[in-house]
Amino acid sequence: MSSDTPPGRAAALAATATAPDGRVVDHAVADLSLAETGRHQLRLAEHEMPGLMSLREEYAGKAPLAGARITGSLHMTVQTAVLIETLVSLGADVRWASCNIFSTDDAAAAAVVVGPTGTPDAPTGIPVYAWKGETLEEYWWCTDQVLRWPADASGSTGPNMILDDGGDATMLVHKGVEFEGAGAVPATTEDDNEEYAVVLETLRRTLAADPQRWTAVAKGIKGVTEETTTGVLRLYDRMRDGTLLFPAINVNDSVTKSKFDNKYGTRHSIIDGINRATDVLIGGKVAVVAGYGDVGKGSAESLRGQGARVIVTEIDPINALQAAMDGYQVAVLDDVIGTADIVITATGNKDVVTAEQIARMKDKAILGNIGHFDNEIDMAGLARTPGVTRTEIKPQVHEWTFPEGRSVIVLSEGRLLNLGNATGHPSFVMSNSFTNQVMAQIELFTKADEYPLGVHVLPKVLDEKVARLHLAALGVQLTELTKSQAEYLGVDVAGPYKTDAYRY
Amino acid sequence: MSSDTPPGRAAALAATATAPDGRVVDHAVADLSLAETGRHQLRLAEHEMPGLMSLREEYAGKAPLAGARITGSLHMTVQTAVLIETLVSLGADVRWASCNIFSTDDAAAAAVVVGPTGTPDAPTGIPVYAWKGETLEEYWWCTDQVLRWPADASGSTGPNMILDDGGDATMLVHKGVEFEGAGAVPATTEDDNEEYAVVLETLRRTLAADPQRWTAVAKGIKGVTEETTTGVLRLYDRMRDGTLLFPAINVNDSVTKSKFDNKYGTRHSIIDGINRATDVLIGGKVAVVAGYGDVGKGSAESLRGQGARVIVTEIDPINALQAAMDGYQVAVLDDVIGTADIVITATGNKDVVTAEQIARMKDKAILGNIGHFDNEIDMAGLARTPGVTRTEIKPQVHEWTFPEGRSVIVLSEGRLLNLGNATGHPSFVMSNSFTNQVMAQIELFTKADEYPLGVHVLPKVLDEKVARLHLAALGVQLTELTKSQAEYLGVDVAGPYKTDAYRY
Amino acid sequence: MSSDTPPGRAAALAATATAPDGRVVDHAVADLSLAETGRHQLRLAEHEMPGLMSLREEYAGKAPLAGARITGSLHMTVQTAVLIETLVSLGADVRWASCNIFSTDDAAAAAVVVGPTGTPDAPTGIPVYAWKGETLEEYWWCTDQVLRWPADASGSTGPNMILDDGGDATMLVHKGVEFEGAGAVPATTEDDNEEYAVVLETLRRTLAADPQRWTAVAKGIKGVTEETTTGVLRLYDRMRDGTLLFPAINVNDSVTKSKFDNKYGTRHSIIDGINRATDVLIGGKVAVVAGYGDVGKGSAESLRGQGARVIVTEIDPINALQAAMDGYQVAVLDDVIGTADIVITATGNKDVVTAEQIARMKDKAILGNIGHFDNEIDMAGLARTPGVTRTEIKPQVHEWTFPEGRSVIVLSEGRLLNLGNATGHPSFVMSNSFTNQVMAQIELFTKADEYPLGVHVLPKVLDEKVARLHLAALGVQLTELTKSQAEYLGVDVAGPYKTDAYRY
Amino acid sequence: MSSDTPPGRAAALAATATAPDGRVVDHAVADLSLAETGRHQLRLAEHEMPGLMSLREEYAGKAPLAGARITGSLHMTVQTAVLIETLVSLGADVRWASCNIFSTDDAAAAAVVVGPTGTPDAPTGIPVYAWKGETLEEYWWCTDQVLRWPADASGSTGPNMILDDGGDATMLVHKGVEFEGAGAVPATTEDDNEEYAVVLETLRRTLAADPQRWTAVAKGIKGVTEETTTGVLRLYDRMRDGTLLFPAINVNDSVTKSKFDNKYGTRHSIIDGINRATDVLIGGKVAVVAGYGDVGKGSAESLRGQGARVIVTEIDPINALQAAMDGYQVAVLDDVIGTADIVITATGNKDVVTAEQIARMKDKAILGNIGHFDNEIDMAGLARTPGVTRTEIKPQVHEWTFPEGRSVIVLSEGRLLNLGNATGHPSFVMSNSFTNQVMAQIELFTKADEYPLGVHVLPKVLDEKVARLHLAALGVQLTELTKSQAEYLGVDVAGPYKTDAYRY
Repeated sequence: MSSDTPPGRAAALAATATAPDGRVVDHAVADLSLAETGRHQLRLAEHEMPGLMSLREEYAGKAPLAGARITGSLHMTVQTAVLIETLVSLGADVRWASCNIFSTDDAAAAAVVVGPTGTPDAPTGIPVYAWKGETLEEYWWCTDQVLRWPADASGSTGPNMILDDGGDATMLVHKGVEFEGAGAVPATTEDDNEEYAVVLETLRRTLAADPQRWTAVAKGIKGVTEETTTGVLRLYDRMRDGTLLFPAINVNDSVTKSKFDNKYGTRHSIIDGINRATDVLIGGKVAVVAGYGDVGKGSAESLRGQGARVIVTEIDPINALQAAMDGYQVAVLDDVIGTADIVITATGNKDVVTAEQIARMKDKAILGNIGHFDNEIDMAGLARTPGVTRTEIKPQVHEWTFPEGRSVIVLSEGRLLNLGNATGHPSFVMSNSFTNQVMAQIELFTKADEYPLGVHVLPKVLDEKVARLHLAALGVQLTELTKSQAEYLGVDVAGPYKTDAYRY
Repeated sequence: MSSDTPPGRAAALAATATAPDGRVVDHAVADLSLAETGRHQLRLAEHEMPGLMSLREEYAGKAPLAGARITGSLHMTVQTAVLIETLVSLGADVRWASCNIFSTDDAAAAAVVVGPTGTPDAPTGIPVYAWKGETLEEYWWCTDQVLRWPADASGSTGPNMILDDGGDATMLVHKGVEFEGAGAVPATTEDDNEEYAVVLETLRRTLAADPQRWTAVAKGIKGVTEETTTGVLRLYDRMRDGTLLFPAINVNDSVTKSKFDNKYGTRHSIIDGINRATDVLIGGKVAVVAGYGDVGKGSAESLRGQGARVIVTEIDPINALQAAMDGYQVAVLDDVIGTADIVITATGNKDVVTAEQIARMKDKAILGNIGHFDNEIDMAGLARTPGVTRTEIKPQVHEWTFPEGRSVIVLSEGRLLNLGNATGHPSFVMSNSFTNQVMAQIELFTKADEYPLGVHVLPKVLDEKVARLHLAALGVQLTELTKSQAEYLGVDVAGPYKTDAYRY
Repeated sequence: MSSDTPPGRAAALAATATAPDGRVVDHAVADLSLAETGRHQLRLAEHEMPGLMSLREEYAGKAPLAGARITGSLHMTVQTAVLIETLVSLGADVRWASCNIFSTDDAAAAAVVVGPTGTPDAPTGIPVYAWKGETLEEYWWCTDQVLRWPADASGSTGPNMILDDGGDATMLVHKGVEFEGAGAVPATTEDDNEEYAVVLETLRRTLAADPQRWTAVAKGIKGVTEETTTGVLRLYDRMRDGTLLFPAINVNDSVTKSKFDNKYGTRHSIIDGINRATDVLIGGKVAVVAGYGDVGKGSAESLRGQGARVIVTEIDPINALQAAMDGYQVAVLDDVIGTADIVITATGNKDVVTAEQIARMKDKAILGNIGHFDNEIDMAGLARTPGVTRTEIKPQVHEWTFPEGRSVIVLSEGRLLNLGNATGHPSFVMSNSFTNQVMAQIELFTKADEYPLGVHVLPKVLDEKVARLHLAALGVQLTELTKSQAEYLGVDVAGPYKTDAYRY
Repeated sequence: MSSDTPPGRAAALAATATAPDGRVVDHAVADLSLAETGRHQLRLAEHEMPGLMSLREEYAGKAPLAGARITGSLHMTVQTAVLIETLVSLGADVRWASCNIFSTDDAAAAAVVVGPTGTPDAPTGIPVYAWKGETLEEYWWCTDQVLRWPADASGSTGPNMILDDGGDATMLVHKGVEFEGAGAVPATTEDDNEEYAVVLETLRRTLAADPQRWTAVAKGIKGVTEETTTGVLRLYDRMRDGTLLFPAINVNDSVTKSKFDNKYGTRHSIIDGINRATDVLIGGKVAVVAGYGDVGKGSAESLRGQGARVIVTEIDPINALQAAMDGYQVAVLDDVIGTADIVITATGNKDVVTAEQIARMKDKAILGNIGHFDNEIDMAGLARTPGVTRTEIKPQVHEWTFPEGRSVIVLSEGRLLNLGNATGHPSFVMSNSFTNQVMAQIELFTKADEYPLGVHVLPKVLDEKVARLHLAALGVQLTELTKSQAEYLGVDVAGPYKTDAYRY
């Protein structure tokens, strides 16, 4: 495939339109006629994202991101649409791809391209390269496209900022620089997984076209802000190896991200996923939650709130003791797999439920995962079980029937059930996470001096600010310290109020 | 319209097929090709309806309902399909219509017609006259059809049993008898609502065709079993008036119906409805629940379980005190309407939320009803509010925008949000309700002597049996009284265990 | 013992004082110098008993009980003191004994005798015959004393009303009449338990002194109001046998009594009892609650609220299904007795925990009863276990050690742990129960025509009134029906709002 | 006062006895005859302290603390007695004082002196200098006594380890060294509070007796392990100032201390304190919890579990958002002070409830503090309120009545209500805290190389070990990682499992 030929549907979807203001909006989305529906949803989501809307207000007329050219790689949902338009409202130029082949909401993508004042025929929004159900080739082509910019005054054709979720955009730049330095992209080997082979092929094309492209792009990048644990781990690895090319802010470890998104977001979306998938009464059932981290805590609370009897499995004695103190039975999976009606994995680990264990589950028991990766449940092992058959009840809901007749209902093929069977975390939770993202972009873009090469977390005062921006929507009245009280505590009246070690 | 011409889509949908066994299956459903999907769902639902499946097992080979010709009028859902096939498994002949123009699940209807062993081309199931989205004319035509039977040995062309939800089938028979006695159907007047006009028209046709039809039908009916409060109230009214034509069993007031369906069914389905409709985070929000009866109790518990702060309104001081003791703020709606993010009515009363109050709600607040009728929220008044506009966000979700710009999200146009925005109560809860129904059918059909003309409730021992049949599925181990303990309590080892006044 | 010689401490405690107003106050209480402490507690309790205080206000100056001579037999606690003074405030003359040999609060008893304006030297209160730790002889002597009144205008020396808890006063009158009719008290037999022997002896004395005393007393009694299940059962038995001598009101089955006292009172007092007795952390422990009636529901909720994992045992399938739906494991005691850290009986049944099961409990596990009688746990069997030893840790807390070294902590020797190890139900709950009592006294005393011989429950409107009187203290705002809504519901704006069958 | 004359009761209580083994046991406790009761309680507490008992077992025969001379300064309670005997079981010599003038349990103190095998006449235990209700002079005399040891082989007469709670023993040594360096103890000034004046006086005596005593003592100390936030802050201050004399381990910030003691301990003891103090029904009441840190979280959960409606106040927007997400109303105190029935402070701040606010509380509302210091409620300001009167209802429960007649019930005079009105945190929670203490002692004593001068926290693997030792008692079954899973996570199979930043 030459670089001139977009892969698969990309060719058909790629388009360029001229906005009434003369601006060219290039993009590749499924169907611009979905934009009206998308804009509707966006308007409702804005109401649930007070953090982002407050930033728009706070910075109205100030354009702190003027001059920023942000390449975004993050699930192209309705909430992300509000994030994108917030960045634009703060003065940034933006190009966007999704960070997952399935997670794009086509109406949201169309709405962003069309923009608040445009029409499908005369879009006034920003370039998005994303649609639901991309192939891996299409996915990496999209990622490449959003890293290609019209030349700016200095002639740069890359972004100067990256907003990343999982680190794919960052990885492409780093690998590009690495291979450009080596003079060639290495040959694909048998050990490379399918996706990495596509990454290598993508870079082969770009190196053929311009052997210094990524090196130039990397030089122009002031920094990256990263959303998730996975991407953050990659960044810390690079920092340790000495290969990190630009500063990074770890958004994931803001309290208002990890302790809200993971716990309260899950509390909402886990039962939403199970309900939409199965319509089965949760009350009175035995539900096993594997893992009692924040996601597990939110899952257990949610299921208990619906009247389930929750049993927790844990490997960490501290979390296990917390679960016990919170009134849950803590057992090993082997002992309870045969009595559970619902089994949910929330560990971040692999092979948490093995194929052999699935085979011992109750007839018609429900099995799902709400941890980040899809290897918590051994789906591959399940598929290899002799005599097992798989029936699609409806999309993302499959019945796996064993030879003896018993069957198990598997949600989202082992992928995140809240995203696969429902609509993921709701806007209010994502507003917390994304407000951290926007602040992190502003910090890196405007205070380069304060963020040398390395992986940083946002200062606690900004973390507190994110929380602060979400209080009024919930009617929360915050108490203000008197000066004398603040002195007594040894803090500033305006915060931050806690030490970095404080666990919340 | 002559009686020969079915109204609207009825003509197109009405069909008669001959099963492989020579049995004729007449029906009117949307699309028999949906049967496969429906049978799939039925199979899963059977697993969640252990009460009904236990009855099939208990009576295997005994056919207690052999000879019963049951006309059913009850929402034609997947759960009802399991009920119907249970009745058939117990020996009954059955004909079925839905009791609501919107509530039919077309796949379930098709599955019942096709039957467990048939195919769309050679159905082996039973006659169903129901599809999603009937007109009122179509609805009453369907009800009439399921009251028309092939002549039996005695020449009767009516049912000998009715299974009713809301009392429409029962009402048609009673009104028919009344008008046949009077010699004519009265003229429709201005005061008659739209639906009653259709009822009168339907009866005019039948009287024209056969002036003694309903009188004959009523004579052949051994009794009716009624599902809901509404239908039960109609029956008690008739009993009081002396116009009741055959005995009735009030299924609604079995403990395993009212205390489970209302409370635990609602706990499940209320958040399911809100979530599917709006995707809005419930956690941290202020939710007002109007009414703290069983439905209100289930609603409040469910919303609290998701992290909402629940405020209750009540008119009954005892229920109000219960709400306070359960930790809820109890307020009057006027005082909290402006701070609520979610308002739910669950009262059984009318005008619980007035148009004027809706106009004072927070911007983008959510308003829904989970009480039986759609007059709890004054939708008509809302529609008359000067300058208000209504935008459909998606089916059953509307944004009502006031001139000053604020808007309110109304679910299911004020009708039951759990049915309109989600899939209603889950199978396990309905299994409790429907096991009561089947037992009531057996009682009335086989023990006519014990149920003279009047409205009866099931004996407590049967109520306990319903519960008993649902324990194993939840892994419940029941303790058995010793003989000595039973004597001490003055009860039988096998129950019943409580006095009739016991409140559970 | 002659009737002239009070038994035991009675002689020492019996006293007669003349109040400043010339009124003679006879009594037998432990120590009048405790009155100040008692009056203090009374004043605080009044604040938590808004129902009683509201009645004082409502009837101020009206004296509906003027002329009533009420003999009370009910635990002589602080709350009862507020009840007594409420009766007096409504115009009644009152004489009081406790209904349990251990339950008297000596300070409260003294406070009632001294009265609000009196002093220990010049008491202005009312006659109380009760002290903590009576012998059975003393107990029945006290009961006899409070049934002896100064002669009224008609020469009657008995009460005209009884307020009873458990039915001892009522029983004494009925047995007296029975034996007077027979001409003699039967001989005590081996089958008579210890207490009944004392009753017989008491009646032998009274018959010897006056062979028509009880017959005369019974004639003067307008009725009795009874507090508990036990006393109510005795009354229904008499009604069935045709031996009931005067009308009775069953206060126990008012909703505001049974659904509040049993559930919410227990929720409070069960953990209070366990905590004061053992100081053991409840969080994380496995607690078994035997019985899921109202007391069991309150117990389970309370223990779960402290972080225990609660397992329920039940004999009634409906209650068992409720427990499962509320998220509790439902098991049989034999299966879980070896893993429970806390075992609580709340059944109303006997032999719920057998000695053999106690022997299988975990080392240092806690065993207690919160059901009415002390035979739920087989304490007698435990005491007979070979090799077992009993060590008093502190009063009402005993460690029973088995030969192999394991031991079990038994609370209150198997009697009600909330009364034995803590202070029983708190005032606010008792205010509900006692407001029912006062209303019942007014009903029977002032509307004799409406309460023929029989056992009655209070009309629902009074039940609702009791609730109503407790709302303001909790800040509850009640919604008022519009006239149109009331008509729609078919109720009066002022209530009652529910049918008698409504279960709350 | 010369150093030869012990102050106050000290002279009367100080004693020396010779054990049967010839060992001399010096001590000063209230009454050795209480030892039997104490040993009883100790035996029960041991069962609830599996962490400490496991350490005894793990190190049986190994004596890791052989040679350790530990001076302990920590509340002399039953739980501490188990801690002390654990240290002894591990080979240590121990001398103990309480760290609070009120917190000694005299029976526990006696039990420790008498020891498991001794008698009051022939004690075999260890030296304790503590009794309930010491004066400040007595308190510091006791602290001095436990820092005086019989000379060891090297001639040292001081401890080589300190186990501290609040840092008083550590402070005395540091101040002693400081003043010895300066050659004199400074004069007491007007600004010195009462207690500091006593400290200075104590040091004046010791310097007079031996001007190099503290310098020698400090040299012999290998390190200190500190229990609480307060003591830890003092240590960090010294570290920053460069005045820290020996290494320290901060036990407070172990997860198994702060996240368990603070949250789950409080959940238990807060309602225990309120109940024992007031006997007031918590259900249905409005409770304000000031502060939503770990103590506030435990308080709110506990009160909600009893059916209270909880309102939270917060100064930190993150904690405030957590409270809202957990379903609590978050308000400012001024807005809710007039409607609250119960107000609890849990902030760590001062002047959280002012006298002016107390004056606006509901009549008979309850006010208490569960934060560490007694300045959260402005008791001094309350006492100065014109016309206010204070009545003791019972010890630690006072009614403050305002001139207009309303009154407020104040618990424990504003000091920790769970300690003042109940018995503080239960043994199981303290077992977690104290297991950390023992491990910290072992670490410092046996691995001096690994703990240079500074303030350290225990390695996470030991924190996890503490949790691990408490699982079996609760029946928790821990899942073990496979080797492959551990590699995937990048952790060791045996832990630690989380990064230091993980928040639990």
